[in-house]
Formats: sequence, structure tokens, C-alpha cells
Amino acid sequence: MKISIERGNLLKAVSQAQSVVERRNTIPILANVLIEAEGDTVQFRATDLDIEVVDKAPAMVERAGATTVSATTLHEIVRKLPDGALVTLTDDGASGRLTVDAGRSNFSLATLPKEDFPVMASSEYHSNFSAPAAILRRLFDKSKFAISTEETRYYLNGVYMHTSDGEDGKVLRCVATDGHRLARIDADLPDGATDMPGVIVPRKTVGELRKLLDDDDMQIAVSVSETKVRFATPDITLTSKVIDGTFPDYTRVIPVGNTRKLEVDASEFAQAVDRVATVSSERSRAVKLQLDEDRLVLSVNAPDSGAAEEELAVAYSDERLEIGFNAKYLLEIASQVDRENAVFMFNSAGDPTLMREGNDTSAVYVVMPMRV
Amino acid sequence: MKISIERGNLLKAVSQAQSVVERRNTIPILANVLIEAEGDTVQFRATDLDIEVVDKAPAMVERAGATTVSATTLHEIVRKLPDGALVTLTDDGASGRLTVDAGRSNFSLATLPKEDFPVMASSEYHSNFSAPAAILRRLFDKSKFAISTEETRYYLNGVYMHTSDGEDGKVLRCVATDGHRLARIDADLPDGATDMPGVIVPRKTVGELRKLLDDDDMQIAVSVSETKVRFATPDITLTSKVIDGTFPDYTRVIPVGNTRKLEVDASEFAQAVDRVATVSSERSRAVKLQLDEDRLVLSVNAPDSGAAEEELAVAYSDERLEIGFNAKYLLEIASQVDRENAVFMFNSAGDPTLMREGNDTSAVYVVMPMRV
Repeated sequence: MKISIERGNLLKAVSQAQSVVERRNTIPILANVLIEAEGDTVQFRATDLDIEVVDKAPAMVERAGATTVSATTLHEIVRKLPDGALVTLTDDGASGRLTVDAGRSNFSLATLPKEDFPVMASSEYHSNFSAPAAILRRLFDKSKFAISTEETRYYLNGVYMHTSDGEDGKVLRCVATDGHRLARIDADLPDGATDMPGVIVPRKTVGELRKLLDDDDMQIAVSVSETKVRFATPDITLTSKVIDGTFPDYTRVIPVGNTRKLEVDASEFAQAVDRVATVSSERSRAVKLQLDEDRLVLSVNAPDSGAAEEELAVAYSDERLEIGFNAKYLLEIASQVDRENAVFMFNSAGDPTLMREGNDTSAVYVVMPMRV
Repeated sequence: MKISIERGNLLKAVSQAQSVVERRNTIPILANVLIEAEGDTVQFRATDLDIEVVDKAPAMVERAGATTVSATTLHEIVRKLPDGALVTLTDDGASGRLTVDAGRSNFSLATLPKEDFPVMASSEYHSNFSAPAAILRRLFDKSKFAISTEETRYYLNGVYMHTSDGEDGKVLRCVATDGHRLARIDADLPDGATDMPGVIVPRKTVGELRKLLDDDDMQIAVSVSETKVRFATPDITLTSKVIDGTFPDYTRVIPVGNTRKLEVDASEFAQAVDRVATVSSERSRAVKLQLDEDRLVLSVNAPDSGAAEEELAVAYSDERLEIGFNAKYLLEIASQVDRENAVFMFNSAGDPTLMREGNDTSAVYVVMPMRV
């Protein structure tokens, strides 16, 4: 193999690949990236056996071929090369070394045989559809904070992507929950997604996927089977196993009969919650909300260190209510609101509370109260 | 006590104070800041028993008095208050609480008696002088990287500030070393510093001092005794015990007979060292320098992972030389050079090497070689 490639293109491709590689590996080749050169393209493949990313870049291929080298070392080297440099990668197949040349720098990196690299088996995908990056970004960005970190509840360690019935017809829906709070985000159902099986996309995949979604105008090709999900741009293909489990019936958790409506400026609310929570050093800081006619008092009482109280002007016309929440949960939910006021729908101090952005029901959050 | 103070002034004063406070304390009051209000000033005092910082800010003092509260909690609260807010601190002395009011927020913080706060004993200072912030910043910034972290060599855990004879007369000098490398930085001796005893300023003090030195035009009042050092601006006074030990005779370490001179662009050199060191995963990466007529080849050989080589055009006219260094040490030394080329003076592969910035001898570095 012998190829020349512009440093910027190489860096982009290797960055995406190396981020999938786990820092600690018992299997040495999993620390490597598989480089395959053919035609006028080089592709970089990395995997942790659950996720595989393949990143293509244009290159001058003088001699086709393939090899594997340490993903982090290659990435570090390319990162440190000067901008605009032309990088030449050469592997003669015999020496067990890949040489990296750029200007007056040259590196020789230990390789492992390409045959040993575990390429993910290709699958039959049940559904194939296309969605704009901005839509997928919203679905995952607004739901991922609620993903559970409890490994025993592995079926909650991801975002449940599935189809459902929304208020205005069929939707593509992402749901995540850890049992204490839940996020349910909807988007119009893309053509071809109707029969998509519901899949639980693991947390790490959600993180890697995010890097494909920065460009608003990009169309992402999505493929889904019972066991795998694939997201692809023209350059990058991210394939991931999905979590082998059943996502619980979340619909029963979403309250429908909550009638006490509070409307509040989401950013003012989040800042106030953040401030009053300061006096408590405990990890699960309970914030008390006292609601009265157009008036909300937030308070925290930590006997050892102090107390805090803050009043906000809000829209509320129902009867007096006192209810407590974990400050962290309130903050995370309030920070999802990016357009309108936050609307909270309460029932009683013991019931789950619903939050949405203004009157938009395409993003709905549920949070469990806490005794205060 | 009852005072009102603008949030920006309060934040600045409390920030400086809280950074001295250690995160973990066995003595509860050391987590607190002592607030003393009198006249038209409030002062905040914090200590870890070795360093004390006193920060003054203008305030409307309605009722003079003093109390102590958690430095981090107060800092967090003030940080989260909106910019421009007027903050009122009230302590009635009886409730054991300090109230913090700002707009619609109010906090009540647990206090500890001001009498229990350990105020550092005042000292007789042997020397008092004044130096521009920029001069002190250079002295400490350029030397602190070489401070030892080995606790057993406690007398190397700081910067040795003393007077000495420079090439052009008396100088104020800062020296730090960890036995592997050394930095010696000189400045013109300020009036009044002639009889200053040499003191070892501890690493933490050097870090805290740095925050006083941002303003180029500020004059810093420096006071030195055998056991303490004090740095003061009109608003902030930083007092610190000095390390009770004898700084070794560093002059013997600085080579005087090195004649082989290498001149190299410091930033090109640092980037090349950084790049070639990438292939080695060991902590102490050895970089080999091969010097020939106007030519420097940097190389690293890590049998497991690979090798790297880079050539630089340099000015060198002595005989061929091969010498090895710890990459980290070379990088740190090269990054001190901010104006001119780096000039290295070598003797043999086994002798300490000297580095300076161009022909300026007011900043001199020594680094021990490594077998490669």
C-alpha cells in the first residue's frame, strides 16, 4: 500500500475512527485502525466489536493495499503535523511497519495483519430511510440526558428509537428514561420508516452518532434491523449493535390527567434552581417548589450548611401546591427548552410531573417528585 | 454586620480567597472565609495555615462586624448571581447564620465564630521592596515548571527567590530545579531588596501569587523575612510561610565550559520534539538529537510501537554529536522561549546541557541528558 493524502482529510477520517476505539483493550488489534486503499479512496475502519465506524477520504493511491496500525498513535501524529501537509502512508507488507512521511518528519509504526481485524458481519436491514441531520440531532440530543447509567437495567442504557402514533399521525420517536425521569421526542415519520422495528441505541453509539449530525443540510441514511442500526453520510458509516432487551412500556409513565399548569421562563427557572441548590452539598439535592397565584418560590433546606429561597414571577392559576424534585433532574429538563417557555403540568405532590416546551407536544418530559 | 456590595466586586474578592482554601479539611473553620466589614470596606480572609490571602473590596457598610462562612458555598452562590446584582450580607451575630440577599434570591448560610478563625501571626519583615507585576511574573512563570514534586526533597518544592550577582551587577533571581532540569531567571535588583534573605517560595504560593500578577502596570509590594514572604497589591495581600530548608548550591550545576553551540527556532524545535515523541507510550520518552553541520535530526525509537525521525535546519558548526533527553523536559524548556531562538550549549553526551533565549543570559536553563 502506498497513498498520499492531505493532512486535513486524514485527520478528519482518523479522528472519527479513533474515538470508537476503547482506551483499554485485551485484544491488541482492537486498538488499531484498519486502513484500506483502493481506487482514489482510502478508508479507515475501527471497532470495539459493538460499534464499527468506516470513514472514507479522497487520496492518491499509488499502490492499493491494506494494513492496521494503532489508532491513537496515528491520530496523535496526524494531529501534530502542520496544517496543509501532504502525508504519505507506505506499507510494503513484509516489514510489519507502516511509514508515515510528511515534510521532514517520518514515522514508522508497528502494524498487525489486516486479516486479523474483526470486520463486523454485514446484515440484512429491515428498514431503510433517510432523515435530515437536524431532525436526528434533535431526537437524540433532547432524549439522551435521561439514559440510565445503571448497568443492571441494561435495557435502559440507550435511546429507544421506534415508530409510534403522535397527535398528528405517525412519528419517529426517541425515548429514554432512568426510572426517575423520561424524555419522549417525536419527529415526522420519514418515508420508508413505517415498518421499522423499535431498537434501543446504546449510549456510546448515541455519542458517536452525534459527530455525524453537525451539518444541518446533511441527509443521513438510516438502516435498522432487529439487531443492528446503521447511520451513514456519504463519507462515514456508523454501524452498531442495538441493546438486546425489551424497552419497558413507557406510555403508562406519562401522566395524562395532570391539570395544574405552570408556565415559566425556562432559563430564569434553570438559573434559580441552580442557585438555590448551591447551599446543599448532597448529591441528590432536593428543591422545593411552592406554587401560588402567579408566584413560584423555590427553596432548599440543608440543616448543616444553610438554606436558600428564590421567588419567580410565573403564570399559575390553580390551587396552592408544594412539590419537591431532585435539583439535577429539574436543571437537565429545563435546559432542554430552547425556544419557548417551559410548561409544567402537575397533579399532586406525589405524582409524576410532565414538562413540555410551550404548547409543543413533540418533546415531552416526565420527572418523578421527591419528598421534601 | 450588614453590608451591600456589587456582585462583580464580591466575586473577585471571594474568588481569590476561596482558591487558597483546601478542598478537604480536618479543621472545619479552614473551609471558611473570614468576612470583616468596617468603614467603607469589607475584607475576605482565607488560609490553609501556610498561606493567607486577604482581599479588600469597597462596600456600603451599614453595620460593621465580622463572621465566617463556607468559602466555596459563598463563591458558588456569588458566581451564579446575575451580573450587576447588588448583594447584601447580613449577620445578626445571634442566629449563627449569614443571610445573602440579591434581588429575589436569598440564602442563609451556617457561620462559625470569627474568634475561632486562625489569623496568621504578623511578622517583622527584613526587607521590603516594590517590583512591577510583569517582572515578578517573568521570574516565577519561567522557573516554576522545574519545581520538584518529590515530597522527600521538600527543599526543592518551590522557587528559590534570592539576590545574586548577575553579569551586569546585582540581580533578583528565581531558581527552581528537580535534579533533572533547572531554571535560573534574573531581573534587575529592585531598590530595597539588597539585603533580602533568600527564601524558597512553595509551589502553591507561586500558583496563588500568579493571580496577582496579571496587570502589567501594577506595582507589587514584596516583603521578605527568614520565615515568611508577602506580596501585596492595594487590594490583595498574600502572605505565605516559606519552605524551612536550604536550597542546594545550584551554581555548581550550571555548566560554564560548554562550547558546542546549537541555534534553533524554539517553536519549530518544540513541535518536532512533540511529534517524534508520539510513537513512544512510555512516560519518560527519550528523544535522540543527532547534530551535524547545520543539521539536527530528532529521533525516537520505541521497539514495540514504532520509530520516528525529523530533520531540522539549524545553526551548528561544531563536531558531530549524539545526545538524548527526556522529551517532556525538552518540550517544557523550549516552550519558555518567547522572543528569540533557543540557544543550546552542549559539552558531551553525558554532560548537562545549557539552554538560553538567544544571547540573553537573564534566563538560563539546564537539562540533564539521558542515555539513548
